[in-house]
Amino acid sequence: MEFSELIKTATVEDVLLSRPGVAAVRGTLCITSHHLLLSSCPRGDLELWLLIRNVDAVEKRVQNLGWYQPPRSGGSLRDTGVSGSSGTITLRCKDLRVLQLEIPGMEQCLNVASSIEALSSVDSVMMLYPFFHRPPGLRLQQGWHLGVAERHLQRVAAQTSQWRLSTVNGDFSACPSYPRAVLVPAAVGDEAVAKAARFRQGGRFPVLCYFHPKNGTVSPSAFCPSAFCPCAFCPSVPLNGGFQLQRIPESGDPKPNPLQSTKAHQTAHGSVPSARGRPLQESFARLAEACGDPAPSMERWLGRLEGSRWLSHVKAALSTACLAAQCLDREGCSVLVHGAEGTDTTLLVTALAQLILDPACRTLEGFQELLEREWIQAGHPFQLRCARSASSHARGKQEAPVFLLFLDCVWQLSRQFPFSLEFGEQLLLTLLDNAYASAYGTFLCNNEKERSLCKVRESTHSLWAWLNQPEEKDKYLNPLYSHNPLVIWPSVEPQSIQLWQGFFLRWIRPSQHLDEARVEIQRLVQGKNSSLQESTGKRLSQSLPESPAGTENGETGTAGTR
Amino acid sequence: MEFSELIKTATVEDVLLSRPGVAAVRGTLCITSHHLLLSSCPRGDLELWLLIRNVDAVEKRVQNLGWYQPPRSGGSLRDTGVSGSSGTITLRCKDLRVLQLEIPGMEQCLNVASSIEALSSVDSVMMLYPFFHRPPGLRLQQGWHLGVAERHLQRVAAQTSQWRLSTVNGDFSACPSYPRAVLVPAAVGDEAVAKAARFRQGGRFPVLCYFHPKNGTVSPSAFCPSAFCPCAFCPSVPLNGGFQLQRIPESGDPKPNPLQSTKAHQTAHGSVPSARGRPLQESFARLAEACGDPAPSMERWLGRLEGSRWLSHVKAALSTACLAAQCLDREGCSVLVHGAEGTDTTLLVTALAQLILDPACRTLEGFQELLEREWIQAGHPFQLRCARSASSHARGKQEAPVFLLFLDCVWQLSRQFPFSLEFGEQLLLTLLDNAYASAYGTFLCNNEKERSLCKVRESTHSLWAWLNQPEEKDKYLNPLYSHNPLVIWPSVEPQSIQLWQGFFLRWIRPSQHLDEARVEIQRLVQGKNSSLQESTGKRLSQSLPESPAGTENGETGTAGTR
Repeated sequence: MEFSELIKTATVEDVLLSRPGVAAVRGTLCITSHHLLLSSCPRGDLELWLLIRNVDAVEKRVQNLGWYQPPRSGGSLRDTGVSGSSGTITLRCKDLRVLQLEIPGMEQCLNVASSIEALSSVDSVMMLYPFFHRPPGLRLQQGWHLGVAERHLQRVAAQTSQWRLSTVNGDFSACPSYPRAVLVPAAVGDEAVAKAARFRQGGRFPVLCYFHPKNGTVSPSAFCPSAFCPCAFCPSVPLNGGFQLQRIPESGDPKPNPLQSTKAHQTAHGSVPSARGRPLQESFARLAEACGDPAPSMERWLGRLEGSRWLSHVKAALSTACLAAQCLDREGCSVLVHGAEGTDTTLLVTALAQLILDPACRTLEGFQELLEREWIQAGHPFQLRCARSASSHARGKQEAPVFLLFLDCVWQLSRQFPFSLEFGEQLLLTLLDNAYASAYGTFLCNNEKERSLCKVRESTHSLWAWLNQPEEKDKYLNPLYSHNPLVIWPSVEPQSIQLWQGFFLRWIRPSQHLDEARVEIQRLVQGKNSSLQESTGKRLSQSLPESPAGTENGETGTAGTR
Repeated sequence: MEFSELIKTATVEDVLLSRPGVAAVRGTLCITSHHLLLSSCPRGDLELWLLIRNVDAVEKRVQNLGWYQPPRSGGSLRDTGVSGSSGTITLRCKDLRVLQLEIPGMEQCLNVASSIEALSSVDSVMMLYPFFHRPPGLRLQQGWHLGVAERHLQRVAAQTSQWRLSTVNGDFSACPSYPRAVLVPAAVGDEAVAKAARFRQGGRFPVLCYFHPKNGTVSPSAFCPSAFCPCAFCPSVPLNGGFQLQRIPESGDPKPNPLQSTKAHQTAHGSVPSARGRPLQESFARLAEACGDPAPSMERWLGRLEGSRWLSHVKAALSTACLAAQCLDREGCSVLVHGAEGTDTTLLVTALAQLILDPACRTLEGFQELLEREWIQAGHPFQLRCARSASSHARGKQEAPVFLLFLDCVWQLSRQFPFSLEFGEQLLLTLLDNAYASAYGTFLCNNEKERSLCKVRESTHSLWAWLNQPEEKDKYLNPLYSHNPLVIWPSVEPQSIQLWQGFFLRWIRPSQHLDEARVEIQRLVQGKNSSLQESTGKRLSQSLPESPAGTENGETGTAGTR
């Protein structure tokens, strides 16, 4: 396939671009293999530079005016097809932006629409923009966090004698959606692991994903992101949606034999009722639609917010993560996390619980490593889940905004603990945008095996490399961050959960003032640090622990699990 | 009346105090004329120091255990009445705090309850705590903003020849709820004003409350907080709730003759549907109850939030204020603001519109003056409106949280414009607390006439004097404040209006981390200002205008009135 075959019209003049909250602008529209550009007419400014992959749905409305329309003064009407007709294309983007293009000439309009539709739906991964994007100043293979996950696993393995690093999946034969290196119980040989994998959906045998070294004790507290078959081995009835947490008593080692291990388990009462697949996707679509409602009454808005059930999903995800974290931190128990396929809700819960428990995951670097480990390498199928967003009418069965739900939960944490995360909202937005449409290869494909086959690491740039450039990085830092060594127990009461306006209303009511406030605080901190480096710099990074005795001793924590 | 007659039991030992989010504590309860004290048993710390006036409702539950209960070890059971019985008193405070007291002995429990009930319901203003409170370091008559309102009126009168300062109400005979000095049309003599007042409900003839000197023009843009009779003079049908805005065309001077002036008016489409009296009080009660719901589902919470209609009132109040402000700023028209009695919604709208329009009202000092002028001296009946709060079962017909609604709207402004108000949430909370129960005289009585009769200014301390002490003042400042000379047009879409968690959830989910963030930012600003005073101090106060061209040219402004 050649891109040129898909582009029926490459340039259209006299196009009117309208966006909510911004004055409409007229200019020349260009369609390239990967981008939609619009440069304004009198001044030649580039007004729009949109990755076509970002387009979720194309709506067109053409009208044949039926009479001769003279060229407008100032603009030129180059429609050589059906004179006097025009059309409007509405582009609904995956990041919830809505753009409207008024195009002279019915035929041109239809050509533009079908070009955008075709280009935004290219199936082949290796035809996507990341394989063509070559940003200046970055080298290929830079910042791929190569070996980061392995080093993490080695560190964990060094802390306990009960788990060992295994390369049983070195060729992705045991589990195609796991990475090459995994942690398995020390007592179990690779052969037994490979055998056990055959009894699991997708081969996702239990592996260790987090070891909680509380107070220096080496209790084998661990999350195992694993997918059990909805199976005869499992004596406990799976909760709604096939999701459950299982508490492993202190005495028992979690072994990959499900019969053996699940017998010893006690089922904890954790569930994420419907935070998966279709219901979650519909919830997202309903909320996005409600947010775009131009002038609802307060009653109608609150009704639609409730009806979307999105905040219920957020609450459920946070509650379950708190429950899992509590088992590790309070009871010193290990936890086995079961999801239907082990690639969605399971990762949501284990990643959130790690953020709650582990201060290392709350730095900018640590959070990137957490994402790399718990989402990308652990096999969340980004390509399937993020193929379409809230407004596409061609939604497949595999789409689900699980990653969005995770980032929303992280945002709730960052709001409740304004000091404890080193990164701010802008990072969460950037990650989300890149998961759905990106110039970088980080979120491409569904798992490590596919990434390896497509040579993603060899042929595309890493999002991390770009984000971590000094001039970029500043945008993502939380100026108020101060290392907090404690567990952060969020309040998960409905009254405490808020709509993530920064994402859901980003293009509707720009929060420019709030962004400026962040920049100003950052400037203050930098000014202070540079001028008072010795005297107060230390105080800044040490003061104000956020989880004092009251929080740490369980009040918020127990609230977290009701 | 002597307070001692109302106090049936002055001291009770072995009382257990429980509060949400705080560990229960056992100690000795003391009831004084104005306070409820509890000092903990082993350590003697003062655990509670509550102004009894803050108690909104007292609920008691007694239980006769019917068998002999031995004294607990460590505590002594001094119940000489009915041995083995006990009781629980729940105090619902006007600031939405809920306290529970477990008291040994049924009779003691009933005595405590009836003492608190009696002391919290004292009718006579001059028996209230402000008349007894003598804080060290403050002089009586200090900080009463004496003459501030008059000076303001003189300034305004100097700007225009069409209005003049009148003392027609010098003895409160024309309008008992107006202050002594008011601005009236220059063309109308005092005698005509006094005559016109007789045709208005409560005598509230039209007066000038704000003169908008936009771009140096002297167009007679003005708000007139006035209460027209729901009357024959008025050709336009009053909108829901009897509230309306009337636009006065540029040519016409607003004259106090309603017939003459209203004929020339065009009714604008502004209304605050039910932001008054009973519906507002019920809305507040329903929301407070929903916030206290310990573990609702997300659906239930959002349903109750919607059902309370509180956010609808907030939206309506902000929309109407925007509409009024728009008439002045965009159209150069004067506006006549009509409320039912002219002492509630009218003041809400005129005060909010001034905050939106006038940067001087957004400083700490300017805001205090605005409150003094537009609420206290303009005759908002604080004593009637704030006699009881959300949970009293003995609510009179006159209670209404109009002032709370105003402060909630101010909070919405402060959230949308984080740089533009010099004061922060803590000031709004303090003002609210003092409006309902105070040690200071500022919010006592219903109008200037009553305050004068009770000698409030001679016999009580001013809240402003206390707030403006250097060590207090710091708590109320917004560290990010930077003078913004522009009009701030808030977004009033339902999606942009948020629940004021800092007030409604204050005692349920303490926002300690957010308070710490504020303190930290404040520390940063102070550190920066002191160390880099010359170089960056100026930049700080000049940078980052919040209403750039895009806002100023109407986008948000028009949104504000949909």
